[in-house]
Amino acid sequence: MTTQGLGDELRTFTAERDWDQFHSPANLAKSISIEAGELLECFQWTDDADIERVKSELADVLTYCLLLADKMGFDPEAIVREKLEITRQKYPVDKARGRSTKYDRL
Amino acid sequence: MTTQGLGDELRTFTAERDWDQFHSPANLAKSISIEAGELLECFQWTDDADIERVKSELADVLTYCLLLADKMGFDPEAIVREKLEITRQKYPVDKARGRSTKYDRL
Amino acid sequence: MTTQGLGDELRTFTAERDWDQFHSPANLAKSISIEAGELLECFQWTDDADIERVKSELADVLTYCLLLADKMGFDPEAIVREKLEITRQKYPVDKARGRSTKYDRL
Amino acid sequence: MTTQGLGDELRTFTAERDWDQFHSPANLAKSISIEAGELLECFQWTDDADIERVKSELADVLTYCLLLADKMGFDPEAIVREKLEITRQKYPVDKARGRSTKYDRL
Repeated sequence: MTTQGLGDELRTFTAERDWDQFHSPANLAKSISIEAGELLECFQWTDDADIERVKSELADVLTYCLLLADKMGFDPEAIVREKLEITRQKYPVDKARGRSTKYDRL
Repeated sequence: MTTQGLGDELRTFTAERDWDQFHSPANLAKSISIEAGELLECFQWTDDADIERVKSELADVLTYCLLLADKMGFDPEAIVREKLEITRQKYPVDKARGRSTKYDRL
Repeated sequence: MTTQGLGDELRTFTAERDWDQFHSPANLAKSISIEAGELLECFQWTDDADIERVKSELADVLTYCLLLADKMGFDPEAIVREKLEITRQKYPVDKARGRSTKYDRL
Repeated sequence: MTTQGLGDELRTFTAERDWDQFHSPANLAKSISIEAGELLECFQWTDDADIERVKSELADVLTYCLLLADKMGFDPEAIVREKLEITRQKYPVDKARGRSTKYDRL
């Protein structure tokens, strides 16, 4: 994810506003939680959320995730792939199929 | 973000385990909040978090974001760009430079 | 809430461990979010959560709320009552009855 | 916490608005996470949060905690005490003093 291009755009956006000073990893992690809460608010009393609101809030979560990845020197696409490989092993198809059970109880 | 390839991999991973039944938008939004909390835990008492732990937890947040985007029919990269354009207008460089003030108080 | 007695017990617990140094308001706010995520995890894939787990996680959220209230000099019961009065006015019975609509759209 | 009186007030508030239908345990757990995110937002870019805002957001978290406790049949003060006893044993004074290390690494 984040083709090179998008990462550059976010970096430019931040630099133009001199916001890098606020974007410590801890502050970005807080921001991800805050925006995740706003995304969850779309589903607070209903499963049938407003699509435009979900789009806007999910974009906020993703943006802070990309900023944190950039700050930490992670390639977002690579870390998702790396974790997916771990999850594949924790949840082998034959055991995990059709079950939401956590791996340590499979 | 999420080049076509990664989206496909996640879809295959989910399908092989028959997990699509659990991945309602509301459940994915909950999952994003839960994983965001685990990411924040890396910074609970310190600004100096363990890099491998941050990588692993950020990957979880991103994965659920990509699953939700896919479920809602959003292109993750496109919605980040779209929101960035809105944020650019809410926070013009000359007003926002070097300040963490919210747009409605700029 | 938090009868005097419980506040004292929490204060003693913290002082004995010399943990007051970690309990800045910002760290306690992070802790509340982290524990709220663990509580939410009880309901990640089901509405039918394990009661003992919910009890334990809710207790953690409450504990950090009480620690933050204490740190900020708030009486927990008083601030809940104060906010309830505001909410009563935002959501008058005749308009809000049976609806989960947010006050600014009532 | 929640002297009998406050629990009754919250129950009346909810009943008058016929909101019990929205207050499933899962929805209340989501609400706690959402409000915890708003509380965290007070500390997003600063450790020096606005006191009135913190008071208001903490009150919201507490309110939903009390509603969930009531819904699950828990006595809020009792479950905090019960958990405190467990935490006392996990973090004995002589080992935990002055350290923020998690119990499984003490």
